[in-house]
Amino acid sequence: MNSSPAAEGVLILGIDPGTAATGYGVVRRASDAGVTLVECGVIRTTPREPLAIRIREIYDSIVTIIERHEPARVSVEDVFHGKNAQSALKLGHARGAILLAAAHSDLIIAEYAPRQIKKAVAGHGNASKDQVAFMVKQQLRLLEAPKPADAADGVAAALCHALMGSFPR
Amino acid sequence: MNSSPAAEGVLILGIDPGTAATGYGVVRRASDAGVTLVECGVIRTTPREPLAIRIREIYDSIVTIIERHEPARVSVEDVFHGKNAQSALKLGHARGAILLAAAHSDLIIAEYAPRQIKKAVAGHGNASKDQVAFMVKQQLRLLEAPKPADAADGVAAALCHALMGSFPR
Repeated sequence: MNSSPAAEGVLILGIDPGTAATGYGVVRRASDAGVTLVECGVIRTTPREPLAIRIREIYDSIVTIIERHEPARVSVEDVFHGKNAQSALKLGHARGAILLAAAHSDLIIAEYAPRQIKKAVAGHGNASKDQVAFMVKQQLRLLEAPKPADAADGVAAALCHALMGSFPR
Repeated sequence: MNSSPAAEGVLILGIDPGTAATGYGVVRRASDAGVTLVECGVIRTTPREPLAIRIREIYDSIVTIIERHEPARVSVEDVFHGKNAQSALKLGHARGAILLAAAHSDLIIAEYAPRQIKKAVAGHGNASKDQVAFMVKQQLRLLEAPKPADAADGVAAALCHALMGSFPR
């Protein structure tokens, strides 16, 4: 339980969905709008396992992270609408499990396109992965960028909402 | 609780996933391989609602059906790999919620392509929707085909597994 949510600001869970690797980051947005990193990491699933088992692992891991930090909001990266229907279908399974975990916890859900996240974090929608990781490091005053890259993408999704979302005073 | 699962045969929940309408059917496969319809219907969601709420409705409805009938297996229609990545992504969300509900209930999960279901139920992989509905009616000795069409597709998925799945004696 948060002893004093008002003083502690708003916790935001950012997620970059993927069937094999789902990156996540939890940031705290203080009442003065300053943002700090709380935790980040990657949920990995085994390609050998059936899809149903893999998405259960993703769902259960997200629920565990939500229980640990009790974020008020979740910021999920929306996907680039590529050409490949099969990979979009697979990614949809993972994203469905993530949205479901957030909905079951009654969190406020925000969704951002990759371009919006890059623009919010690194200043332009075509920023490279390295540029985004560098700006995540700068904005959160870290000694180095979160690793691996999927974790940095999850943190970037959270940071995007901290910068772009609307927060009651 | 099933009082006597062996005498009652195996209950199979068949599902035709969709974001707007998910058809389902529960059939009982007796030990003499005869198949009877137990229940069928459609889970509808509101297009105005956010995607996370819609897939929560699908998940919760599937869990309710599983709790009501306690099927041992679930047979889920796999999707035709069409050209449209955006609709595949959306369908993936619904399918993810369905597989997750089945995985959380530790059901045996079987997946069949639409062609396999048509072939098993109606004799050839290019059967029309009407032909499939007619053969579902015939094989289950119903007075008329299950309605609406989505419900019939859910029943067809269950019937496919009853006919094609492997069952210990």
